[in-house]
Amino acid sequence: MATSASAQPYGRLFNFSAGPAVLPLSVLEQAQAELLNWRGVGMSVLEMSHRSAAFETILGEAEADLRALYNLPATHRVLFLPGGATLQFAMQPLNLRAGGQSADYIVTGAWSKAAHKEAGRLGLARKAFDGEAGQFTHFPSQAELQLDPQAAYLHFCSNETIHGVENTAEPVPPAGVPLTCDASSDFISRPVDLSQYGLVYAGAQKNAGPAGVTIVIVREDLLARTPAGLPLMLDYKVQAENRSLYNTPPCFPIYMGGLVFKGARGLGGLAAVAERNAAKAGLVYTAIDRSGGFYRGLARPDSRSQMNITFRLPDEALENQFVKEAAKEGLDGLKGHRAVGGIRASLYNALPPEAAQALAEFMTDFQRRHG
Amino acid sequence: MATSASAQPYGRLFNFSAGPAVLPLSVLEQAQAELLNWRGVGMSVLEMSHRSAAFETILGEAEADLRALYNLPATHRVLFLPGGATLQFAMQPLNLRAGGQSADYIVTGAWSKAAHKEAGRLGLARKAFDGEAGQFTHFPSQAELQLDPQAAYLHFCSNETIHGVENTAEPVPPAGVPLTCDASSDFISRPVDLSQYGLVYAGAQKNAGPAGVTIVIVREDLLARTPAGLPLMLDYKVQAENRSLYNTPPCFPIYMGGLVFKGARGLGGLAAVAERNAAKAGLVYTAIDRSGGFYRGLARPDSRSQMNITFRLPDEALENQFVKEAAKEGLDGLKGHRAVGGIRASLYNALPPEAAQALAEFMTDFQRRHG
Repeated sequence: MATSASAQPYGRLFNFSAGPAVLPLSVLEQAQAELLNWRGVGMSVLEMSHRSAAFETILGEAEADLRALYNLPATHRVLFLPGGATLQFAMQPLNLRAGGQSADYIVTGAWSKAAHKEAGRLGLARKAFDGEAGQFTHFPSQAELQLDPQAAYLHFCSNETIHGVENTAEPVPPAGVPLTCDASSDFISRPVDLSQYGLVYAGAQKNAGPAGVTIVIVREDLLARTPAGLPLMLDYKVQAENRSLYNTPPCFPIYMGGLVFKGARGLGGLAAVAERNAAKAGLVYTAIDRSGGFYRGLARPDSRSQMNITFRLPDEALENQFVKEAAKEGLDGLKGHRAVGGIRASLYNALPPEAAQALAEFMTDFQRRHG
Repeated sequence: MATSASAQPYGRLFNFSAGPAVLPLSVLEQAQAELLNWRGVGMSVLEMSHRSAAFETILGEAEADLRALYNLPATHRVLFLPGGATLQFAMQPLNLRAGGQSADYIVTGAWSKAAHKEAGRLGLARKAFDGEAGQFTHFPSQAELQLDPQAAYLHFCSNETIHGVENTAEPVPPAGVPLTCDASSDFISRPVDLSQYGLVYAGAQKNAGPAGVTIVIVREDLLARTPAGLPLMLDYKVQAENRSLYNTPPCFPIYMGGLVFKGARGLGGLAAVAERNAAKAGLVYTAIDRSGGFYRGLARPDSRSQMNITFRLPDEALENQFVKEAAKEGLDGLKGHRAVGGIRASLYNALPPEAAQALAEFMTDFQRRHG
C-alpha cells in the first residue's frame, strides 16, 4: 500500500462512515485545545449559557461563515435546530403546507422516500417522481417530473446517502411553487445558489459538524405560512423570531459546525471544496470504471454522488471479504447500507485525499488478488 | 478572600450559570484526552456512526450508569432525545393525553407555567395549583392541590430554575393518575424513587451534561397511550422501540452525559451527591440568613432549592454592584433571571464546594463594605 492509514496522526483510521462522519483534523484539534476554556472566557463551550456574550459570538460567527460560504442573501434566514433531518420531514409540511394543500416530492432514494412518507402521514403529499421501480439509480431530468402546479412546495433530496445518487442541476418547480431540499449529505460540499430555494435543511453530521444540530435555511416570506397551534419547538416562525434561541439550543454541535464552516472558508470556499471532493471521488469511480466489471457502481454515471459511492462486487462473500480486508488496512466504515448491500464509501469534505487514494489502491489490489 | 477563583486550573472561573452550566472538571479532562480517538477505536465520538459498536457501548454505558444511580426498575424505559425540555412540554401531552382528556399541572414557577401553557395550546390542561399570585415562592403541600381524578397525568416541576423553588416530597396524584415531572434542573442531584413516576424528563444542561440531549424516563405501560399520527420524532413509542436510535441522536451530548453519570457513581451515588449539594447550598443560605435582612431569599425556607439560590439585595443598584464585584473575583453568572431580578446562584452537582465557599465569603465581605 502506497498510503497507509496506520501512519495517521493519533492512531486515527480513514473513516468512510456515511454519518456521523469524519471531521477535519484541524477542527478536532482546535476543539480539543479550547475544550476547558474557550478563548479565555473561563469555561468550556460545553458549559456556557446560551444567553452569554460568548455564545452569541459563537452563534453569530457560525451563521456569518455559513452565509459567506453560500453568499446567502438577506431574504433567507438561518436556523440551528435540534432533531435531525427526520424532524424536518415533519416540520416542513406542518409549517409550509396550509390547510388541505398537497406537497410534491421527488423520490430518488431512501431519504426522499422517508420525507414523502412522513408528509403523507401528516397530510397530503404527491410523488412528482418515483425512482423506486428503477431501484433508485438516478436523479430524474426535468422531463421525467410530473409536477403539481398547485403544490405547497416541490421537495427533493440533493444527495441520497444510501443509494449514492446526487443531482447535478436543480429541478425547476412550477411558477410560484417553492423549491425545497434535504441537503443533509452534500451540504457545503459544492457551490449551490440557495437564493433559488424556499427551504433547505441539513443534519450536520455528514459535512457540517457532529450529530445534534440541523441547519435550516428558509426564505423569510415562507415563515408567514406557519399555522397557529403547532408545538412551539416545531414552529419555524418561533424559531426564527428567537434566532434559534427559543430554548437552549445544541450549543456544542453549533460551535463545532461553526469551526467546520470557518475551515471550509479557509480552504477557499465551496468551489475549492468541490474541486477537492471531485478529485477524491474521481479516484474511486476510476477504480470502479477500470475494473472491467469487477466493481459495479450502483448509480447511473450521470447521477453519481460525489459524497457516497455505492458499488457491488461479484458476490456477497467477496463483499464481506472486501470490508474485512479493508478494515485491516485502516479503511473503516465501508459496508453498504443493508437496504442496498455491497460497499459504500462516503467521501465527505473532511475525508483526507490520501484516504481516497488509499481506497482506490486497495480496490485495485483487492481485485488483483480476488478478481 | 480565602478561596480565590483566580487560582482555578486552566484559568477557569467559578461558574454559577443556571444552565448550560459547569461540568465536572474530571469529565472535561477525560473528554479532552479522548477527543481525537475514543478508546483507541481510531476516531472521535464526534465522528462515529451511531450504529457502530463503539457508540452502542457509549449509549449502553450511559443508560446503565443512569439506571444504577436511580436504581431504576425494568418497568421504566430510558430515552435520550433531542429538543430540550421545551419539546417535552409538547411531547408529554401529545403522547399521554388521549382524546379529549385533560391533564393536571402544578404551577410553581416559570417552567411549570410554560409546560402548562404548551399543553393548553395543544389540548386541555388544568392547574392543580397556581403559585403565581404568591409570586412562586413555594412548593405546595398536598392539601393545597386541587386534583382532577380523571386527569391524564399530574405534572410538576421538581425544581424551578428561575424562582429557586424545589419540592421536598412528591405530590400524590389520585389513584390511577400517573405522576410526571420536569426534573431538568435537579436531575441526579439527590435520591428520588423514580419507580413512582409515570414520566420524568430532564434537559441535560444543568446537572447531566451539555445542552443538546434530554433524558426521558417513561413507564413502559404508558407507551400504549401514544396515538397514531404524531410526527415520528415526537412519538415516545417509536423512540422507545428504536432505543433512541430512530434517527441519528445527539451522540456527543449523550456521551458527555454518560461520563457525568459515571462520575456521580464514582462519588458514591445520589445520596453522596445530595449530601455534597446540601453542604454547598447550606453555605450560601447561611450567608443569607445571617445577613440580618441585607440578603433576602426569595423562596420560602421550606421550599428552598438546593440548586438555584435566588435572593435580592436592598436595591437594584446594589445588586448590579454585587454582580460586577463578584465577576471581578471570578464568580461568574450570578445575575438573576430578568423575570425575578436580583441574584441567582446555581450550585449544580459539578460546582466545586470551594466555589460555594468563595461565594459565601464574598457575600459576607460585600455586606461589610456596602451594608
